[in-house]
Amino acid sequence: MKLTQTVKKGGCAAKVPAMILREILGGLKFPPNIPGVEIDGSHFDDAAIFKINDEVALVQTLDFFTPIVDSPRNFGAIAAANALSDVYAMGGKPKTCMAILAAPLATMEPSVIQEVLQGACDVITKAGASLVGGHSIDDDTLKFGLSVTGTVHPQKVWVNQQAHVGDKLILTKPLGTGTICAGIKRQEFTEEEVQDAIQSMMRLNNILDVLSTTELEQEIHGATDITGFGLAGHSYQMAKASNVSFKINSSMLPLFEKTIECLEKEFLTKAHRSNEEYTRGKVQFGDVTQIKKYITFDPQTSGGLLLSVGAEAADKIVAHLQKDFPGTCVIGEVVNKADFDVLIY
Amino acid sequence: MKLTQTVKKGGCAAKVPAMILREILGGLKFPPNIPGVEIDGSHFDDAAIFKINDEVALVQTLDFFTPIVDSPRNFGAIAAANALSDVYAMGGKPKTCMAILAAPLATMEPSVIQEVLQGACDVITKAGASLVGGHSIDDDTLKFGLSVTGTVHPQKVWVNQQAHVGDKLILTKPLGTGTICAGIKRQEFTEEEVQDAIQSMMRLNNILDVLSTTELEQEIHGATDITGFGLAGHSYQMAKASNVSFKINSSMLPLFEKTIECLEKEFLTKAHRSNEEYTRGKVQFGDVTQIKKYITFDPQTSGGLLLSVGAEAADKIVAHLQKDFPGTCVIGEVVNKADFDVLIY
Repeated sequence: MKLTQTVKKGGCAAKVPAMILREILGGLKFPPNIPGVEIDGSHFDDAAIFKINDEVALVQTLDFFTPIVDSPRNFGAIAAANALSDVYAMGGKPKTCMAILAAPLATMEPSVIQEVLQGACDVITKAGASLVGGHSIDDDTLKFGLSVTGTVHPQKVWVNQQAHVGDKLILTKPLGTGTICAGIKRQEFTEEEVQDAIQSMMRLNNILDVLSTTELEQEIHGATDITGFGLAGHSYQMAKASNVSFKINSSMLPLFEKTIECLEKEFLTKAHRSNEEYTRGKVQFGDVTQIKKYITFDPQTSGGLLLSVGAEAADKIVAHLQKDFPGTCVIGEVVNKADFDVLIY
Repeated sequence: MKLTQTVKKGGCAAKVPAMILREILGGLKFPPNIPGVEIDGSHFDDAAIFKINDEVALVQTLDFFTPIVDSPRNFGAIAAANALSDVYAMGGKPKTCMAILAAPLATMEPSVIQEVLQGACDVITKAGASLVGGHSIDDDTLKFGLSVTGTVHPQKVWVNQQAHVGDKLILTKPLGTGTICAGIKRQEFTEEEVQDAIQSMMRLNNILDVLSTTELEQEIHGATDITGFGLAGHSYQMAKASNVSFKINSSMLPLFEKTIECLEKEFLTKAHRSNEEYTRGKVQFGDVTQIKKYITFDPQTSGGLLLSVGAEAADKIVAHLQKDFPGTCVIGEVVNKADFDVLIY
């Protein structure tokens, strides 16, 4: 059974489109934020921060989606790594997970569902977290994800408002999962042939586990994870929140082996266009090819972290991370607010 | 649009059956429990306890389901109250919620989805909690629920192992939501005609908010919430965990106006039979009618709490609760372990 052939829309393509979500949420009368809620997720997609005391805050996030790869175990692992990523992107460490499972019991063997869960369990174990509960229902199509709670010191939350002028921008994973997953769904190649992308999506964004024994941790001023809005969209959000501009060198962008081939064959998703629309007028391009533009619009699943770090520490951080995160590299720099939010040249 | 007619299986009837779940989970290699995890949810249905420090533990639970009533706002409210209930059943107070939403965007107006969310928001507000995030996808059928995190003092967790011999058993909501929702799905009556059951399912199990200003709180020795396994199933679990037996007086059981009529018309669910099978040999019946038996097997959605309380405080607790929880009454007592786990007479 090829999981990607059991669903109409794979992964983040099944998300409620931002415009409809805005319409729905716009008219809602939300519960007021109680004391302790420092960052809410009223836009449904961010991790929230809930302060317990001066030492401990919770980082909470929730994500689930339909299959984007055919291997049940890989799908479970990717869904778990993707859900856990938001905790890492806030500088937190995951502690507890609860599973969200919908599965077509009439057509899917329990062993397949078990593989999905095992893939997730293995990743949760790597993250040093526990699976403490969940809920499962019988449904027409497979969906899986996690609700994750991590902890962070309230003074050490990474926010996307802290990119400083002069910082270097580091990206920790290659780009291209959107176009590659579109290729998988079209059955253009096997998962074996895009192992680098699969492994990357299964990889935890646990850069703190690598850096925390060094003095480099405090050189990370701000962070965000690159997901559905692509590098262009998330860079724009971070630059705007920090009231600075980003200059990104398109020749530095780390790519998977098949990223360019897939884009040349036009394995595109709706998000390639909607991300272009979303960033129009905010993200400017120098003399770059259409393929390079597509790369920056490519929606990522379980993408890397975009870090804004002190310039002098940048090379050391990259060196430390490269062993565990092979694609890590400096892709640009933070400059004074200009007439663009992001310039990709 | 009648929500219950958009799904094949409503509410808890869509849950992955316990036997299949056991098969799936049985072969899984779970992540180890990290320090702090005091109660895990490896059976997918309980609330977990994660200790932050000597003062604060998290109570975490997650629940979502398909529509069991036709009114979008009522459905959202019931799904929220149902998810929040597990936190109350552990003696906790809900703090943060994240929404789990799957909606058929092609056939369902955004305004309908908004109503579902508004119903949930209203209940979350009543609970004194915040909605801090969530995730939404486009899907063939509507599903909604919450991931909930509450807090509790680690020494004040209500467990189901603390029913003491001599205690009285108090039930805080009437029984019959299973058969009544089956009637709604068959379109045998309007929701107006079963308002008592709808209102009950929308009601928070926040008995601590009512009792916490009194000395009665400490008279509650153990608690569980009555959900899918019905009064019979959950009583059995609690009696067994406490190493005692329960005697329940079937003539004392609080019912909704239409509970008996629905059962007489045989508006049954699969759970009526599976709960009978589950409790066979554990729950004994005295000279009670088949309808009374059905009542104890009736699966509850957002059902009441079953409290085991000090005998002398029982009447006072009932008196305090009855204003907010109209069905509350003493339904039985805790006795020394006998050759039955539960006797219903």
